[in-house]
Amino acid sequence: MATADYSALGLRTLNVSLEDGVLVAIQNRSKAFNTWDEYVPFDIIKLFELADKDDRVRVVILSAEPTAGAYCGGAALDPKKGWNALFTEEEQKEGPHAHRDTGGKVAMTIYRCRKLTIAAVNGHAAGVGMTAMQLPFDLRFVWSGARLSFPFIQRGITPEATSTFLLPKLLGHSRATSLLLTGATFSPDSPIIAGLYHQSFPTRAEVFPAALAFAKEIAATTSQLSVAVTKALIQNSGDSIEENHLLDSFTLRTLGPGVDGSEGILSFLQKRAPKFTGTLSKDLGPWFPWWREVSTKHRNSKL
Amino acid sequence: MATADYSALGLRTLNVSLEDGVLVAIQNRSKAFNTWDEYVPFDIIKLFELADKDDRVRVVILSAEPTAGAYCGGAALDPKKGWNALFTEEEQKEGPHAHRDTGGKVAMTIYRCRKLTIAAVNGHAAGVGMTAMQLPFDLRFVWSGARLSFPFIQRGITPEATSTFLLPKLLGHSRATSLLLTGATFSPDSPIIAGLYHQSFPTRAEVFPAALAFAKEIAATTSQLSVAVTKALIQNSGDSIEENHLLDSFTLRTLGPGVDGSEGILSFLQKRAPKFTGTLSKDLGPWFPWWREVSTKHRNSKL
Amino acid sequence: MATADYSALGLRTLNVSLEDGVLVAIQNRSKAFNTWDEYVPFDIIKLFELADKDDRVRVVILSAEPTAGAYCGGAALDPKKGWNALFTEEEQKEGPHAHRDTGGKVAMTIYRCRKLTIAAVNGHAAGVGMTAMQLPFDLRFVWSGARLSFPFIQRGITPEATSTFLLPKLLGHSRATSLLLTGATFSPDSPIIAGLYHQSFPTRAEVFPAALAFAKEIAATTSQLSVAVTKALIQNSGDSIEENHLLDSFTLRTLGPGVDGSEGILSFLQKRAPKFTGTLSKDLGPWFPWWREVSTKHRNSKL
Repeated sequence: MATADYSALGLRTLNVSLEDGVLVAIQNRSKAFNTWDEYVPFDIIKLFELADKDDRVRVVILSAEPTAGAYCGGAALDPKKGWNALFTEEEQKEGPHAHRDTGGKVAMTIYRCRKLTIAAVNGHAAGVGMTAMQLPFDLRFVWSGARLSFPFIQRGITPEATSTFLLPKLLGHSRATSLLLTGATFSPDSPIIAGLYHQSFPTRAEVFPAALAFAKEIAATTSQLSVAVTKALIQNSGDSIEENHLLDSFTLRTLGPGVDGSEGILSFLQKRAPKFTGTLSKDLGPWFPWWREVSTKHRNSKL
Repeated sequence: MATADYSALGLRTLNVSLEDGVLVAIQNRSKAFNTWDEYVPFDIIKLFELADKDDRVRVVILSAEPTAGAYCGGAALDPKKGWNALFTEEEQKEGPHAHRDTGGKVAMTIYRCRKLTIAAVNGHAAGVGMTAMQLPFDLRFVWSGARLSFPFIQRGITPEATSTFLLPKLLGHSRATSLLLTGATFSPDSPIIAGLYHQSFPTRAEVFPAALAFAKEIAATTSQLSVAVTKALIQNSGDSIEENHLLDSFTLRTLGPGVDGSEGILSFLQKRAPKFTGTLSKDLGPWFPWWREVSTKHRNSKL
Repeated sequence: MATADYSALGLRTLNVSLEDGVLVAIQNRSKAFNTWDEYVPFDIIKLFELADKDDRVRVVILSAEPTAGAYCGGAALDPKKGWNALFTEEEQKEGPHAHRDTGGKVAMTIYRCRKLTIAAVNGHAAGVGMTAMQLPFDLRFVWSGARLSFPFIQRGITPEATSTFLLPKLLGHSRATSLLLTGATFSPDSPIIAGLYHQSFPTRAEVFPAALAFAKEIAATTSQLSVAVTKALIQNSGDSIEENHLLDSFTLRTLGPGVDGSEGILSFLQKRAPKFTGTLSKDLGPWFPWWREVSTKHRNSKL
């Protein structure tokens, strides 16, 4: 088990704390609309990689200061460099095929994190604030007054951060197309985007406390093993119903008689709250992951 | 054509009748909340396998007594055996990879049944009562007062019965994750789960009669061949739009000039109700199924 | 760059005009409920193939006269020939496998058109009026009084025009099954079908003007390159998040420093409307398309 002193990590752009199994990360660049400067993606990746390995962490929440105008306003744009600010010199040596989108690296790290992840969207969001900062999470809580947009086609580029993979899966192609091929700004109440959110709140001050209370309940009442394997079953379901049957038969048979399976049924029959002690580091067998994990890192890339 | 005297089948847990092309199965374990004892899955599989082959059957409805508290309360748990009650001795000889989840067998049988299938959910549902007993059906009718939950992560196990395959397909990943990774209890009116239901009703007494009336109309006005092939086209659509074009061109060309295609267009032009006589046993060619059907049965398994 | 004098194309069934980058096609068979006669599919295919290649076109709208009862009432049925009217003699020489559904050809042409496509559904729609005439479009606007149906299983045939591929992707399997396996008539306000529509309007007279105003704004404010590549990324997303990351990294890196990427960021920083000049004919590299395009044309087919 890897653990970390989160308050001493030295992350520049996130204020982090761990309490009752819930790792909380609050963006601290409110004055800059929590846009992505050069440090933000590194900080997020570092945090979610640690959260994935730290058995104490059961849920991770990413949010912003409730007084901020924006949850995340997108990329911090450099007037001189334009979009070229997104591409490193080293990558550019080999041409376009060598580029690895930073938003995509963040999105994949959050998506593959084996803990429950929650985006508490208590402000406006645009661009990478909609994509990497929301789509790869398991659940999204939102302030109903937020203005939300994917303005890529209005900027001469394409949606990044694996959003053309994630959004159609999350909402279906009809809604994903309405979002990505109009670039319009939507309210969370709009039927176009409402399906993205687990819950919405009338004031921005309510969003994070509600997400935190929810996260603490999840942390107290659910099995870390069940969450990790269920998440993996959803993300890597069988190509056919038969293949999925073989997969979930195996995981049920493996987890059922295990430490959390036994506690799960016992606590239910005894009508008491469960106390799950299983952890990913000691109780998840070598069969996990069962799917092929492909490295997309380029030889010239630091991240 | 295989037919059966459904009232004489000797099913222990289902009361079954066939009328006007609609096969109705009412669970009879109301006092036990219609939980799954050792007989329930065998009865359901037997019934849907017969319904698939019996040309008289055009629609199958599964429901509960409207006075029951539960449509299906999940697995009947044995305090002594825990989850091990789910695993047979024979399967256990070979280790976890030999297990074949009973819920998955039921789900696959219902999913692959070539008749229109309807779950009339006139009571609460949890666990396998949400998965195998609802997700593989073509349509779900529901009582709006039902309490619905997938509590797997609170029991130390993983969602079973191919639910991690079916639920993301049915509702998209955003809603599927909200359901499977929280374990919370939802009302059918909740936007999280509402998309699962074809229709909802304010009282539990209305659900089954509405489903039955609907089923009788489907049985009277639709082609058995069209239903079976359309269902198969949805479940086994092409991997690309071009592949699907080849598939549906073939089925249209094959069914169009056939017995039901001819009656379909004639009755429409004559502005009268159609009288379809085509049946799966005599009018469905050897091209069906066109996809690869894989057996997942383990050599040690009885079911 | 291929261009066309759209008013001189000699299309029999569509009135066509091009203004401000928006190509408008209005069906002119109102008295026949805009059903598909033998000319309609040829006209639509010809128009969308030209629109795809003509750099002046940024958006294509298909609609009907607002006084028409129907947006498209389905196939024009011939009492004598029945469904056989759909199959050409040449195709019939080789048997069912030689048939290529005309609706599918239309659907694929619209789906693969690299411009933004909008169906302005200002009347009732049934059969091919729901499938080829709506599903392959990027966005659908609708009159809330429209009666919408997929009556295939009531006609003894199967859903065509690649609808069993498109509809489950657009709405998920739960809604797609409710639509295709009941054959019922739905209002656009029904939660079963509402997810198909970007926007709905209380009167049929409002639908086309709203779609046109929307289209003109898209045409004026978005990059033709961004639209084409975003659309392709949604339609041909990676099979895994990692594969999509490689795809969208490449397109971001390629479009970003290009003519529209540069204008996109500059206009944003200068807080002015962008003026995109990039075109598919001169600015889209040989890497597009990156997926395998398969010809499904039969050797005996004219279309």
